[in-house]
Amino acid sequence: MKRTSRDIRTANRYEVLRQIIASSPTSRQELAAATGLSLATVATLVGELLELGMITEVGFEDSAGGRPRGLVAVNSSGGALIGVDIAETYVRVELFDLALTVLARADEDVRPGESRPEQVVAHVAAAVGSVVAQAGVEAARVLGVGVSVPGQVDRDGGIAEYAPNWDWHDVPLLDLLAEHIAYPLYLDNPLRACAVAELWFGAARGHGDAVVVNLGTGVGAGLVLGGGVHRGVSNSAGEWGHTTLVLDGRLCHCGNHGCVETYVGAPGIMLNLRELSPRSPLLHPEDQTATVRALADGVAAGDPVALKVVRDTARYLGAGIADLVNLLNPEVVVLSSWVASLLGEPLLDEVRASVARHALRRPLAATEIVLSPVPTDPVCLGAATFALEGALQSVGQRAAGKRAPTAKGRTAPPS
Amino acid sequence: MKRTSRDIRTANRYEVLRQIIASSPTSRQELAAATGLSLATVATLVGELLELGMITEVGFEDSAGGRPRGLVAVNSSGGALIGVDIAETYVRVELFDLALTVLARADEDVRPGESRPEQVVAHVAAAVGSVVAQAGVEAARVLGVGVSVPGQVDRDGGIAEYAPNWDWHDVPLLDLLAEHIAYPLYLDNPLRACAVAELWFGAARGHGDAVVVNLGTGVGAGLVLGGGVHRGVSNSAGEWGHTTLVLDGRLCHCGNHGCVETYVGAPGIMLNLRELSPRSPLLHPEDQTATVRALADGVAAGDPVALKVVRDTARYLGAGIADLVNLLNPEVVVLSSWVASLLGEPLLDEVRASVARHALRRPLAATEIVLSPVPTDPVCLGAATFALEGALQSVGQRAAGKRAPTAKGRTAPPS
Repeated sequence: MKRTSRDIRTANRYEVLRQIIASSPTSRQELAAATGLSLATVATLVGELLELGMITEVGFEDSAGGRPRGLVAVNSSGGALIGVDIAETYVRVELFDLALTVLARADEDVRPGESRPEQVVAHVAAAVGSVVAQAGVEAARVLGVGVSVPGQVDRDGGIAEYAPNWDWHDVPLLDLLAEHIAYPLYLDNPLRACAVAELWFGAARGHGDAVVVNLGTGVGAGLVLGGGVHRGVSNSAGEWGHTTLVLDGRLCHCGNHGCVETYVGAPGIMLNLRELSPRSPLLHPEDQTATVRALADGVAAGDPVALKVVRDTARYLGAGIADLVNLLNPEVVVLSSWVASLLGEPLLDEVRASVARHALRRPLAATEIVLSPVPTDPVCLGAATFALEGALQSVGQRAAGKRAPTAKGRTAPPS
Repeated sequence: MKRTSRDIRTANRYEVLRQIIASSPTSRQELAAATGLSLATVATLVGELLELGMITEVGFEDSAGGRPRGLVAVNSSGGALIGVDIAETYVRVELFDLALTVLARADEDVRPGESRPEQVVAHVAAAVGSVVAQAGVEAARVLGVGVSVPGQVDRDGGIAEYAPNWDWHDVPLLDLLAEHIAYPLYLDNPLRACAVAELWFGAARGHGDAVVVNLGTGVGAGLVLGGGVHRGVSNSAGEWGHTTLVLDGRLCHCGNHGCVETYVGAPGIMLNLRELSPRSPLLHPEDQTATVRALADGVAAGDPVALKVVRDTARYLGAGIADLVNLLNPEVVVLSSWVASLLGEPLLDEVRASVARHALRRPLAATEIVLSPVPTDPVCLGAATFALEGALQSVGQRAAGKRAPTAKGRTAPPS
């Protein structure tokens, strides 16, 4: 999509709040230096954030010979944000303060046979009610609820267009949720959630061009380009898991053959193990998480089969990441999600070696490859950040007499 | 790279001039409607362009009931731009007026054994002198010279970092050229030149997200994202030719195996033909152009071998383009450069079918695949546009008392 001056103002607002959250307390002068924005622009944006109650004045610091500088800090209690991670087997909901600290969490299992949209929505509604009650926040302080659902999402329409695991097609998820949840609602998918989490709070912060590689059951890449999330013309950018790595290779559920996901998604890793050692005790045929954990434990114990599987997986993964490096020339590639988290440093080391074998010298030299430093569930954190971004975006739009186009549901809290 | 407010002002200046070139004569009101910018912003930018002499006032049109609206048009004779296409076997230089019409052209053959930087620079200098003399423009009217050189380029430093065909490493090309050429000089590579040509004058105009696939001896993708060219952190984005399509496939000169380029670059197409029919009369072993032209003629005549080679090539190409569609979700994919131009519609039809077999439904539905509509050498046109962009960028920077960072050489014309 083309960028407008309104987009750049919203992006600047994000950038200033991001910087305040990262370095509270801070001065307008420090914010100008850190963001590259003019002091006048920073002063305007800080004024808006103060008016919203998202930040507060917290005193002054001496400046050598000049007037004392006013300090601002994030107002943690100035609002609450809720992040919803709808996954294949569970719904996780977390409630955050404005410093994005988790105040409450609720998990609901989604059992096989419970995957109809109404059933999933009931789980989400129950968990959202639970976190609000646990945290004891007034409903009026909840700025919004961000929801992550796997697959392809019509963000503006609030529709889960295609969720492969459940074969959902064109489910009007936000309308269904709005029947139970009275806060502003924002929908997107886990790729975007993880990208936003890294951009605001993780390894992509301060970088213009970054790729957040999501390694879970499904696989994809959240793209941060030009300092913002690249969504593409129909919000489906980032489907790196469905790029061809091995022409005519393994059959993928998308219908194509040889997709990256079929080699490095959790089921692909299980297949890598099965092809190497069909009766390995590391293999838990019906349990991806147990298998990946057994591989991680095996690597730690020096098990040769586990080492070989991680090396084989890293070979595929490195070739696929080298494609991203050559094509996009990012400053940083972040490995995120549960498979990356379980396999950790041993996977990272092998991936770095494999990328170095496949990538061109110049973009390789410009790129760091790191594990996500986000300590909590990045999908919940990113989903909550959708709500924060929504609240910041609606500042400008309220001023222009418009309603946030991505927020669904009543914006007034329940009475 | 992160975008700044200065970047957005420069991008707006580009957008307004682009629109004026496309639809002269036009009014400020029409420009505001076409670009989405405010009338005040358009009026400011039009004022700058008038002051630069790039556009002129050309009268008024009636507006129903209101004041007559002033019309502006591009001032074709307001300046000249030179584009240089340095290729493996030739140097082509074209001189354009400000409407980007070609006024003069000079070609120089680069014979084997003439590939030292000083030799290539001498060819460029001779051809630049020739086009200025042919067109009879005053040196003072030449706004700049854009130079395209294959491979990886340090744009700001004016350095050809790696040109694979000639094994150039870190050649300070703009400094060498500045010894002979007294106009402001701008360097980049053919991927960027073709992307800029499509963005200003071709199928990417008016689109936020577009991919320009370059099919020649080398292969790559110029990326237009968020309305501007995506260059990456070290100006090496777009190396799609060196993404893996067939893991452990054909050996590529980059050292990797199975790169897209080894299947769909001109030498890869020759190999597709040789593998199918080693003694085919279509094959001109030492001449890529003659072979691709023979294939095009063969397809037109219904030759089954030619048809099969184009279909095989399109199968690889379609899988690789589907990767771009799934990853970037662009509005348009443009096939550019000489191989695309020679193989034309028959290749396009097969590519569309192949992309449809490989891409995901949602991004596929949002994407058009087209042949480049640019009627002249897109590399020369794009290179000349580098000079136009440089002149527009230096407006803001002159105002801020700075010199265009990418322009090399004396900015005063020769006496």
